[in-house]
Order: sequence, then structure tokens, then C-alpha cells
Amino acid sequence: MEHRADPIARMVAQLSRLPGVGRKTAQRLAYYIASQPEEDVRELAAAIWQGRQAIRMCSRCGNYTAEDPCPLCADPRRQRDVLCVVRDPRDVAAIERMREYRGGYHVLHGTISPMEGVGPEDIRIRELLARVGAEEISEVILATNPDIEGEATAAYIARVLKPLGVRVTRLAHGMPVGGDLEYVDENTLHKAFEGRREM
Amino acid sequence: MEHRADPIARMVAQLSRLPGVGRKTAQRLAYYIASQPEEDVRELAAAIWQGRQAIRMCSRCGNYTAEDPCPLCADPRRQRDVLCVVRDPRDVAAIERMREYRGGYHVLHGTISPMEGVGPEDIRIRELLARVGAEEISEVILATNPDIEGEATAAYIARVLKPLGVRVTRLAHGMPVGGDLEYVDENTLHKAFEGRREM
Repeated sequence: MEHRADPIARMVAQLSRLPGVGRKTAQRLAYYIASQPEEDVRELAAAIWQGRQAIRMCSRCGNYTAEDPCPLCADPRRQRDVLCVVRDPRDVAAIERMREYRGGYHVLHGTISPMEGVGPEDIRIRELLARVGAEEISEVILATNPDIEGEATAAYIARVLKPLGVRVTRLAHGMPVGGDLEYVDENTLHKAFEGRREM
Repeated sequence: MEHRADPIARMVAQLSRLPGVGRKTAQRLAYYIASQPEEDVRELAAAIWQGRQAIRMCSRCGNYTAEDPCPLCADPRRQRDVLCVVRDPRDVAAIERMREYRGGYHVLHGTISPMEGVGPEDIRIRELLARVGAEEISEVILATNPDIEGEATAAYIARVLKPLGVRVTRLAHGMPVGGDLEYVDENTLHKAFEGRREM
């Protein structure tokens, strides 16, 4: 009720719901928005609302897109026989920024997490199995995060994909490029030793 | 152009324009917004756009408000003869949270800053002089920030108000409550010594 009368309080309440935006930040943003020209604020609100309305999930790979299938799935220059499996659409964007990978994607929209009650049936694993069965896939690259849930998810997917006769790989662990050995955590260092190569 | 086709890129571009929101944060927020229910995103966008449309500047004190005069100026229980002069509407909110001050406000919407080309005529000093002339003001409390521009603005206002025969005061400098002497900067410590009181 208070919010109807007080547009600043309403903005603060809504902005506070964004991840990483605490009350102080929300207040700072609300007063900034209040001070901006109406034109600019209209553009911001439109980008948020029209943007959200325009966003679909690609029915093939699960990435966010304005068209279905998404531009990546529709691109005839992409390799059709390799799939990179990631947790989130953000991960697709990160890999695309690398400008190296030319295959397709499969977005899980989550990772298996017994702690949070997320099982294999809650993320897009069934859809992945269907694709591997229907499309001519020769390799599935598991690019879930190298944390407990990402590893567990990768292990689960590898187990269910193996019987289908598809090659299943996992992104390498190791030293970050430009990293300082002294500051790399011991698990990473251990993996870097394990995965050492001839020079 | 790219943005019309890519709603995420459009959101990122708009969110990046907010203060303190870099490209990475904007991306994080955009993907979060993309993943939220349309209802919630509509509420966020509406709070921003309708909020901005609803916000006026109080014609008396200059605070942001949905009604003119603002609730503070319209409140008959507030003292009418004391004005607290602040830079921004955010400062009004901060002082109101203290729940001690019961007088009126005057929001300058800026501070004098020769470096940034902001002169006395660019902020609401003329309106302050008009109010002191027209309303029965006995005291003007200068509560601009204790930084170079805030001090210069306070000094300027004190100089132009004095001839009007009004009492002009400035917020005290000193140790922050709960502060640790060791970590207080030396200027503040100096001011705290200067302003020491009998116990």
C-alpha cells in the first residue's frame, strides 16, 4: 500500500529482488532512475519487459533466443555432430565469446543437486538423450562447472550416454592461463599434475 | 540493430547504463531476468517505468514525490521555521530514517563544482533564497556533504543567507558513533578535537 503512494519505495522493493542487489544498492539505483530523463527510463523498462516477452527457450538446445530454433541451431555453418552440454544459457555466451568452438549446444538449465532436491529428471537430460538418439551426434562435451554439482551431473550424463555408443568428453582441468602457481588451489594443481603433457 | 534480434543483448546494454553496473553484472542480471516468470518481470519493469512517471519534484522543497507539495511539506506536524538544506533526495531519506529531525527540507539537486561547470545558478539556491524571504524561516541547517564541493556550497549559501538575518548552521564534524579512533581519518580526528565538549 505504502508503495502505491511512494514510487521510490516501489522501485526499491522491486530492484531489491534482483540477485546481488541489496537494499542500499536498490536505493542508489532507484534515486538514479528517478533523476534520469523519462525517455531513458522508458528504454530501460522496455528492454526489460519487451526483452523478457521476446525470450523463448530454443526447443532444440534450450538456449535463450528470440526465434526458435535459435540462431546457433539454425546456423548451417555449425558442426552438427558435436554437442557441448552446459548448465546455463550464460555458459553458451561465455563459450561463444571464445570464438573457437563451432559445434552445437545443449543447455541443461540446472545441475543435479540432491541438497536442493534437483534430480536428473528436473533438468534437460531426457531431451539430451533424445537428441543423441535422433541426431547424428559423434561427441558430447560435458562442460558443466568443475564444482561438486557440475561434476556429479557430468558423471551421471556420461553414465547414461555411454550405452548409446557416443564419445563423451569432459573439459580439461588445469592451471588457468596467466595464473600464478602460488595462488592456484591444491585441487587444481593436483589436476594439472595429473593431466601433464609431453613438451 | 543487433539488439532488436537479441533481447538479452538489449537488456545488457540498458542495464549497463545504471551506475555501478558493469558489463558482467549487467549480463548476470539480464540472464536472471530472462529466467524469471513473466509476471515478476512485468512488476519490475512497471515499478521502474510507472515509478519514474509518477515521480515529480516538490515545487516547494525539491524532494522527489508522487504529490505536489510532497508529504513532508504538507505535514502540519512538521516545524515550519527550520530548513535543512541537502544535495539530493537520497539525503532527505537518510535524515528521515534517523527519526529525529522534525523541520522542513530544501533539496539543491547538486553542489557547486567549478571542475564540473556547476555554478550557484545551476542548483536550487535561488529557490532557497525565495523561500527564506517568503516563509518564516528562523534557521537554515546546511547538511551538504563534508567534502570539498559540499563545504564550498555550504560556505556560499551561508554568505548569501546571512544578510537576510536568518540563523545558518552546519552539521557537526566528529567521530562517527561506534567508530574506532585508529581508523578515523586525520581530518575527521582534527575536527573532533576542535569540536570537543565538556563532560
